[in-house]
Amino acid sequence: MQTYDILIKNGMILTLDPRLTVIENGVIAIKGDTIAHIGTGMNASLSATKIIDAHGGIILPGLVNGHTHAAMTLFRGLADDLPLMEWLTGYIFPAESRMDADFVHTGSLLACAEMILSGTTTFCDMYLFEDEVAKAAKQSGMRSLVGEVLYDFPSPNYGPIEKGFEYTRRLIQKWENDPLVSIAVEAHALYTCSPDLLKTCHAMAIKHGVPLVIHVAETLTELAEIQAKYGKKPFEHLESLGILGPHIIADHCVHLDDSEIERMIRHRVNVITNPESNMKLASGIAPITRLIAGGLTVGLGTDGCASNNNLDMLLEMDTAAKLQKIALMDPTALDAVTVLKMATCEGAKALGFGNVTGSLEIGKKADIIIVDTRKPHLTPLYNPYSHLVYSAGGADVSHSIINGRLVMEDRRLLTLNLEDILFRARGKAVLVNQWLSGG
Amino acid sequence: MQTYDILIKNGMILTLDPRLTVIENGVIAIKGDTIAHIGTGMNASLSATKIIDAHGGIILPGLVNGHTHAAMTLFRGLADDLPLMEWLTGYIFPAESRMDADFVHTGSLLACAEMILSGTTTFCDMYLFEDEVAKAAKQSGMRSLVGEVLYDFPSPNYGPIEKGFEYTRRLIQKWENDPLVSIAVEAHALYTCSPDLLKTCHAMAIKHGVPLVIHVAETLTELAEIQAKYGKKPFEHLESLGILGPHIIADHCVHLDDSEIERMIRHRVNVITNPESNMKLASGIAPITRLIAGGLTVGLGTDGCASNNNLDMLLEMDTAAKLQKIALMDPTALDAVTVLKMATCEGAKALGFGNVTGSLEIGKKADIIIVDTRKPHLTPLYNPYSHLVYSAGGADVSHSIINGRLVMEDRRLLTLNLEDILFRARGKAVLVNQWLSGG
Repeated sequence: MQTYDILIKNGMILTLDPRLTVIENGVIAIKGDTIAHIGTGMNASLSATKIIDAHGGIILPGLVNGHTHAAMTLFRGLADDLPLMEWLTGYIFPAESRMDADFVHTGSLLACAEMILSGTTTFCDMYLFEDEVAKAAKQSGMRSLVGEVLYDFPSPNYGPIEKGFEYTRRLIQKWENDPLVSIAVEAHALYTCSPDLLKTCHAMAIKHGVPLVIHVAETLTELAEIQAKYGKKPFEHLESLGILGPHIIADHCVHLDDSEIERMIRHRVNVITNPESNMKLASGIAPITRLIAGGLTVGLGTDGCASNNNLDMLLEMDTAAKLQKIALMDPTALDAVTVLKMATCEGAKALGFGNVTGSLEIGKKADIIIVDTRKPHLTPLYNPYSHLVYSAGGADVSHSIINGRLVMEDRRLLTLNLEDILFRARGKAVLVNQWLSGG
Repeated sequence: MQTYDILIKNGMILTLDPRLTVIENGVIAIKGDTIAHIGTGMNASLSATKIIDAHGGIILPGLVNGHTHAAMTLFRGLADDLPLMEWLTGYIFPAESRMDADFVHTGSLLACAEMILSGTTTFCDMYLFEDEVAKAAKQSGMRSLVGEVLYDFPSPNYGPIEKGFEYTRRLIQKWENDPLVSIAVEAHALYTCSPDLLKTCHAMAIKHGVPLVIHVAETLTELAEIQAKYGKKPFEHLESLGILGPHIIADHCVHLDDSEIERMIRHRVNVITNPESNMKLASGIAPITRLIAGGLTVGLGTDGCASNNNLDMLLEMDTAAKLQKIALMDPTALDAVTVLKMATCEGAKALGFGNVTGSLEIGKKADIIIVDTRKPHLTPLYNPYSHLVYSAGGADVSHSIINGRLVMEDRRLLTLNLEDILFRARGKAVLVNQWLSGG
């Protein structure tokens, strides 16, 4: 008789393994932080300290939010429906210039609460005061890839760029070997980062063996700027600097022509697409189906809350699929299975966690969620992939386990004090309103 | 001292009245089926049999789902990501040909449960066996505008078209003066209805003073067909038959040129847009901002569950806004207030309920929902319109009152036996699978 730490029974398992194995009446056993057993039905040899009955539930890998700015939860709904520059210069930049570590910590805790409650178990973050994001993620029990945003102008966190490189190096050292927190080098974008800055980032990423995260080809304005400045397209510019490769995680990738796509494929760049943000800011529609057809690893992200306005990956999947269909006028484009892979195994691969998480397989870390289908909008159940992508929302996630630890049970957060976080978040909003009214 | 039936206190009221009045710490009092008082703060003169504390909540008019096929909940997820004709002829039509009254009743109850749970209080339905839809809606306590779908070929419900007209007349008589159920004449579409059928529908609608609901200009295929058959564009065809007017509720209206829009404005046609369905089926993007700018009344609908795949109007609002922004490459297009109006007061107007519901005003019927914002994804609260459109989902609706009756309290359905409906729905899915496997 084998005793496990956690047993999940009675649910339909979507493994998202390479063969997309589906197990009805499935059982998953967890030992420590790892998936130790996956099978059909309970039997006498299975026992555990904690048994979770997933009756009526779909058991699947925790969702991977490939790109966000977690602490921007505190700016959600602050300003919408505005021209991009008015939104940035009138609201976001002035508020960000006043932010401090505690602000980012609070916003990140709020984000982690929202992400766990909506089924995300892993996220990749780019923002300021990223040590606070790492701490919040760790506290919440989430898996994260975080990095301090680097650019040519002085940062409200570290000041001049040299200090930014130093801050990043300290992050890498501090969190080395942490079971949950990983660090990336993160250059903001081509229009905010000089070639020298980009090259230094690249060298640092290669030296430490960590990813280099960067926004690329998000808007037409960016394209025009890069063309004017360097006479090149975004990926062409990066290629000319010698910094393209499989360590690159490129966010957005909306405006691409054939040569750019060919370049991305040649250098095996990882892509995170953010359809809701791209729609809300009217940035454009990324050619996702072509990138996937070209063999690229494409994950899915929500982007920050100020341009979405939530961190719900189940809803993001729905939009991702529908946006490709309407863009291509083809109802078969980006089917439910493909988009669920983007939000799980492919997203994990894109972040460099392909061997760690993103699918339910023996030996992988136990990052598992359960979606409760005993609801009108998820009944009857013909096809679990369809329900997850087209019908479900974050509120349907009942349980979450990350790295073998139960972090949400029957929608109750076990790692965070929700009331306290909401209280602190409301206090920060008072500050934001003061800042923007000149206080 | 005035005693009311229901008092709602402590919430932020978005009235959606013509001045878009917002009341912090608002109180609404209901007497019978009617809103009797709206104000700020409780006082000693206010008492009621039932008091609802909306602390942390946004109080707003119940949402109006302007176009759906309720019973198609039973086909949700049955087949997705397919070419339109394969989806229709391989799955939907064969299943529909085997349907009976009980099937539609069950599917409609399931839909009503989902709609109430996601904040919808009024819906407009087009399907078969519509008396069953009316009964289900009535049973659930929802407000509805329903009508039997009419077309040239024999119906699984009524058989030949003459019987369809008869069935519609019986519906009109049966439900006349019902406080909740209203009847429309419903012609399926221009490509499935002969000019004679359309003219008969028009005459019947005018005679009985009821709306005429019809799908118009949904797909490019339809446009080509109507052009080939009649040498006209869809609204041009309807105009030539002499049947355009403010009694028309036109669903979809995706493919319109200047002349068609001008024609719709001239005849004051009401429009219901269904962005998620139009995206999922790759039908196209309706020029909503132009229709609204032209002064047309434009409501919002989910369409049936098989092409969406849910009936969640909060999510539909989000998609509606974002789809216009990306289509026009303009982040200011279709702002949150405008889209919330489409889902409330404008939608009600489009269905002919403008004086009855769609806003919170003294003398209107009490169709009211409360959205609980005490959650991470709705905290902090800078702008209630933004939260409702861009951040919230159906699961955030805590209470629903329809026609003065509390139908949901703290997410518990008070009018329907949810377990029984889910059980029956699962049984119908077994039937559907048998039908499609040739059983």
